[in-house]
Amino acid sequence: MAERIGENTILLSRPPVILGAAAVGTPAEAAGPLAGAFDYLYDSAKAGAKTWEQAESRLQSKAVRLALEKAQLAPEHVQLMLAGDLLNQCMATSFAVRGLHIPLAGVYGACSTMALTLALAAVLTESGAVQNAAAATSSHFCAAEKQFRMPLEYGGQRPPTAQWTASAAGAAVIGDRGEGVRIEAVHFGRIEDYGVTDSANMGAAMAPAAAGTIASFLRDTETRPRDYDMILTGDLGAVGTRLLLQLLAKEHGVSIADVHADCGLMLYDRNVQDVHAGGSGCGCSAAVVCGHIVPRLRARTLRRVLFVGTGALLSGVSPLQGESVPGIAHAVLLSGDSERM
Amino acid sequence: MAERIGENTILLSRPPVILGAAAVGTPAEAAGPLAGAFDYLYDSAKAGAKTWEQAESRLQSKAVRLALEKAQLAPEHVQLMLAGDLLNQCMATSFAVRGLHIPLAGVYGACSTMALTLALAAVLTESGAVQNAAAATSSHFCAAEKQFRMPLEYGGQRPPTAQWTASAAGAAVIGDRGEGVRIEAVHFGRIEDYGVTDSANMGAAMAPAAAGTIASFLRDTETRPRDYDMILTGDLGAVGTRLLLQLLAKEHGVSIADVHADCGLMLYDRNVQDVHAGGSGCGCSAAVVCGHIVPRLRARTLRRVLFVGTGALLSGVSPLQGESVPGIAHAVLLSGDSERM
Repeated sequence: MAERIGENTILLSRPPVILGAAAVGTPAEAAGPLAGAFDYLYDSAKAGAKTWEQAESRLQSKAVRLALEKAQLAPEHVQLMLAGDLLNQCMATSFAVRGLHIPLAGVYGACSTMALTLALAAVLTESGAVQNAAAATSSHFCAAEKQFRMPLEYGGQRPPTAQWTASAAGAAVIGDRGEGVRIEAVHFGRIEDYGVTDSANMGAAMAPAAAGTIASFLRDTETRPRDYDMILTGDLGAVGTRLLLQLLAKEHGVSIADVHADCGLMLYDRNVQDVHAGGSGCGCSAAVVCGHIVPRLRARTLRRVLFVGTGALLSGVSPLQGESVPGIAHAVLLSGDSERM
Repeated sequence: MAERIGENTILLSRPPVILGAAAVGTPAEAAGPLAGAFDYLYDSAKAGAKTWEQAESRLQSKAVRLALEKAQLAPEHVQLMLAGDLLNQCMATSFAVRGLHIPLAGVYGACSTMALTLALAAVLTESGAVQNAAAATSSHFCAAEKQFRMPLEYGGQRPPTAQWTASAAGAAVIGDRGEGVRIEAVHFGRIEDYGVTDSANMGAAMAPAAAGTIASFLRDTETRPRDYDMILTGDLGAVGTRLLLQLLAKEHGVSIADVHADCGLMLYDRNVQDVHAGGSGCGCSAAVVCGHIVPRLRARTLRRVLFVGTGALLSGVSPLQGESVPGIAHAVLLSGDSERM
């Protein structure tokens, strides 16, 4: 039975378990500091497909298949897949899931999708509605640039605030029993919009939502930042991270600097790789969480991680119509510990 | 506690209740046979907005506000909104929900979105994760034509198999207690793809998924078509309806002709209105269910309706890349009766 506490946090009294998680990437991710965290790295961004969109689908379906393998489950033992991506009409997901024959609840949360799918999968699993659920997402630099900005061939300049869309995917299989990392609580976030209209500065657009969700989660659970080994945002990058720390201090009187990490700052080496303010895209936090964080929780080198996925809810059209960029952030509490919160 | 029965149907032992539902439309819907079912009809397809996309947002937020009014709930009493739409990155939803300050789990199910959001809202409410949830979606003919096909000004011809995207929205507020129509069971569908590549024939692309979900639901619940007052698909239109009946008879040995209705064939008068094969778009089944079916269930002129929302998971890009159109269908069992199934 799920229990609501505080304003909007959901505690899961029989915490669902991540039975298997996998990350898939491409050469940009293979050149980064987390290369070793990936379960599979394609040696080309095309991943053997004909188009960027189809390549992204391959990344996602590969991640799901690897997560299923690790969970030692066949697709028919998973009653529901929660998945989405950044492409128009979540195209990467539809074609990735088509071949898996798992019932699909499509989800859209922009770059917060991994957190959103994990949160929904956890609540649905705990409720008894499904025994096993899969949560997955993906993104692709080339498909995203073409769709949101310019075709790569145009060679457009990117401002320093821009983030680099990961060509990566992550997937997790969540079960109602078993050994593994547990999802102990989830928090669905509200849209926050501080009027940022620069669609090349997603970090600034998403930071207020991240601050709101983190502050709200801490209040609801009556916990402090030091109760967590890590408060992991995904993906604010360098600009958004600075703003997040400022907003939390100024508006909520909370300092998380000691425990904060950001997936967008972990996936690439900004000194060597040309990723400007850091990584982004649904696949960024998905790969970092599924490939790097979950194994560390399993190994108990981390015990309690609050993963806060952040999304910028713009389209290719909305900034051209003068709209600002709404941000959202969803949180899931991941625990490798045997003691409950 | 949710209970899984059969292959993939979820029975809700404490069925959540639709506390309020509302439908919003524009002149095309006002000219149709269900005009009286709408809670609000804008006198222009622009709905007072500057762009088609912003107009669609207005329809959706209006529907949510009206549903909240009917449920006699303020937005702060709704812990989660499940919503999505057809626009790239679910833009209509993001901007509709921004002003409501309700936590948002974005959903993508193409034209199956109303069924998908109702299904998720029902399970989440029944689980105790939220006390009240909102389910909403919208579509807009002009925004959809511009995005998926051609700008209206082009004056492109539409083939007879094409459907007319409703400029409409529907919203429902679901609570864990109270009086009203109950959601007794839900069924998340699988993707079915029979290789239809004609993106102007969505009915054909979606019919196999509808057939699969209906057959599976009947098997899982050990019920027959005549156990329902209505098996309501949304939206197959004239072509898809014919195919659905054929597929169910041929592949599953089931005849639902006596109880079948289709939202796409109900919203407009095809003899008078130029809608070709019928209505479609997320807003079509949303408006028909929220404005027409829920009140009839409340009044007990209908007692048991299996609503099967159907979606075509294509993007503007996928058909150009030679992809076929994957279909999906999600089902929710709506009951106005006091006796359980």
